[in-house]
Amino acid sequence: MKRTDTLKQAAEKQGKPSNFIIFNQNNLTYLTNFSGATALLIPENGECILYVSGVNFEQAKTEAKGLRVELLKRGENLMEKIAKQAPAKKFGVDALPIESWRTLSRAVGGEEKLEPINNLIRDRRSVKDNEEIKLIREACRLATVGMQKAKEIIGVGVKEKDAAAEIEYAMRKAGSDGTAFETIVASGATSAYPHGSNLERTICDGDFVIVDLGATYKFYRSDITRTFIASKATYHQAIIYDTVKLAHEKALEAIKPQVAASEVDRIARCVIEEAGFGEFFVHNLGHGVGLEVHEAPILSPDSKDALALGNVVTDEPGIYVPGLGGVRIEDTVLVTKNGAEILTAGPCLP
Amino acid sequence: MKRTDTLKQAAEKQGKPSNFIIFNQNNLTYLTNFSGATALLIPENGECILYVSGVNFEQAKTEAKGLRVELLKRGENLMEKIAKQAPAKKFGVDALPIESWRTLSRAVGGEEKLEPINNLIRDRRSVKDNEEIKLIREACRLATVGMQKAKEIIGVGVKEKDAAAEIEYAMRKAGSDGTAFETIVASGATSAYPHGSNLERTICDGDFVIVDLGATYKFYRSDITRTFIASKATYHQAIIYDTVKLAHEKALEAIKPQVAASEVDRIARCVIEEAGFGEFFVHNLGHGVGLEVHEAPILSPDSKDALALGNVVTDEPGIYVPGLGGVRIEDTVLVTKNGAEILTAGPCLP
Repeated sequence: MKRTDTLKQAAEKQGKPSNFIIFNQNNLTYLTNFSGATALLIPENGECILYVSGVNFEQAKTEAKGLRVELLKRGENLMEKIAKQAPAKKFGVDALPIESWRTLSRAVGGEEKLEPINNLIRDRRSVKDNEEIKLIREACRLATVGMQKAKEIIGVGVKEKDAAAEIEYAMRKAGSDGTAFETIVASGATSAYPHGSNLERTICDGDFVIVDLGATYKFYRSDITRTFIASKATYHQAIIYDTVKLAHEKALEAIKPQVAASEVDRIARCVIEEAGFGEFFVHNLGHGVGLEVHEAPILSPDSKDALALGNVVTDEPGIYVPGLGGVRIEDTVLVTKNGAEILTAGPCLP
Repeated sequence: MKRTDTLKQAAEKQGKPSNFIIFNQNNLTYLTNFSGATALLIPENGECILYVSGVNFEQAKTEAKGLRVELLKRGENLMEKIAKQAPAKKFGVDALPIESWRTLSRAVGGEEKLEPINNLIRDRRSVKDNEEIKLIREACRLATVGMQKAKEIIGVGVKEKDAAAEIEYAMRKAGSDGTAFETIVASGATSAYPHGSNLERTICDGDFVIVDLGATYKFYRSDITRTFIASKATYHQAIIYDTVKLAHEKALEAIKPQVAASEVDRIARCVIEEAGFGEFFVHNLGHGVGLEVHEAPILSPDSKDALALGNVVTDEPGIYVPGLGGVRIEDTVLVTKNGAEILTAGPCLP
């Protein structure tokens, strides 16, 4: 079934409008398999209309299938054009900034004709279909190629930025369409910042080195982190590392359909708290991965999400000790019928 | 003068609110030189407050200067926290999606207390200060390193994706923090799509090959395009190429402060129209470049922008003939006192 049809079904179940106007780039790619449109009109009945400006029009005519592709001419008012072509009672609209929301409201004849339905698409996108899983699987394979390269080269005297260069090159040569996000190579004290990566530093003896990377394959992404220890771990470092590894394993064991995402986070967090590092686990356990590297569901203490068959999520506990450094171990994981499958395992297990 | 202060000055001149709440990631980086905050409160008087969640808090405390860094605790309501700390009459707010806008409206006690001021920051950001120009200059230098590599390797039998790998590797090794956008290597018929880049194709004899790339340096970006002809150009291809080159040159000559951006677009467009290819120039002439690869000002037929000293813009005419292929020549250009300086020229002139 087409993704636009399953969206309509989901809307009907929740008593939401059955006509939609979509603007978000990732939602557009999700619903049409084409990247580069400006908007999509999904009417309750009849053909969907994809609005594309001149720059991408020829490409859309060739590549966008099963819908009408309409040229958005220079100077044409998109909102008025949509309103004219879709005189429906009420529209579900995904994320729009306030100025555009107001323009669209005027065009359709009042704000009461619009209803934000971003969460509806968020939830649809969190459950991956077979085609999506195939692409994410390939993005994950490419990420493990990058991590394998990291494993080979990370060591004392290597510059963070040079390591990033080799990692990205290896993924590209293996078939990656590009990075899923900015590659993080954070060594020494900088590894105590979860997103720290100045890339100018040279790795020193005794450093923790966090490598967090992802590949993109046909718009789908992957996410993996490993932490290396340059030369030999101290006793204290080994305890931190083993604690994170145990938290990662325990969370993995807990992942299955219908479990509360907050419960999986709690299980990992307990391991870290019991080891005395609770205050240093400063982020959520994980997040969904798909067209975006951060999407639903969220695995955090205050998450309202429940896991479902077909979710693709990260399991990424971490301990960050200011001044000393940090450890994070992360895999991208598919929620299966009875549990979880690591998609980023490959040859580089933690 | 601090960027938050010049923003206040600009707001005062336009009769806009003098208290601000900023949410957009690029605006936050622009105003604080720190990437990774959740929001910024700029009060009319007194200290700015940067709201940062646990994951980036330690890093913000070290790296964000000249403002108060406040931890956004788990479960804390950001909008209510801001509203409590800033009981001002009215706030200027940059881009917020409609749901968040409504939440903030409730928190501050009514939508009438908020005013969208994204255009104000858009205009501020379009005029680069010396520090920004220095960083963009370096990002542009790195882009020319990538293009030099492209020039060396593009040829019959080379796979698009392998060319992209070599280009990105060369930029990384030269010091790039990453690509400014997805590298485009589009050959043959695919080059007729301005954003076409399937990267799976192998370059064939007689192809146009569009290479569009950029580097990032300390958050600032660059953008350059060259079109290569695999082996030898036909007479028809040479005419298309020379027309685009002339349009690029004529536009460049026209760029200087106070000229209407639409006029620069018109000059390039005229060259292409007079050569009989008008219908195939399917996009704008250019756009601003800075923290984002597409920002203000816009060089298009319907642009309301006027160029100003300190703008950094692209000059990128193109001709795209469906089925045959396309040509685009693009440089990132600094608007100087009396004209324009190409920042992406280096060793790879078109």
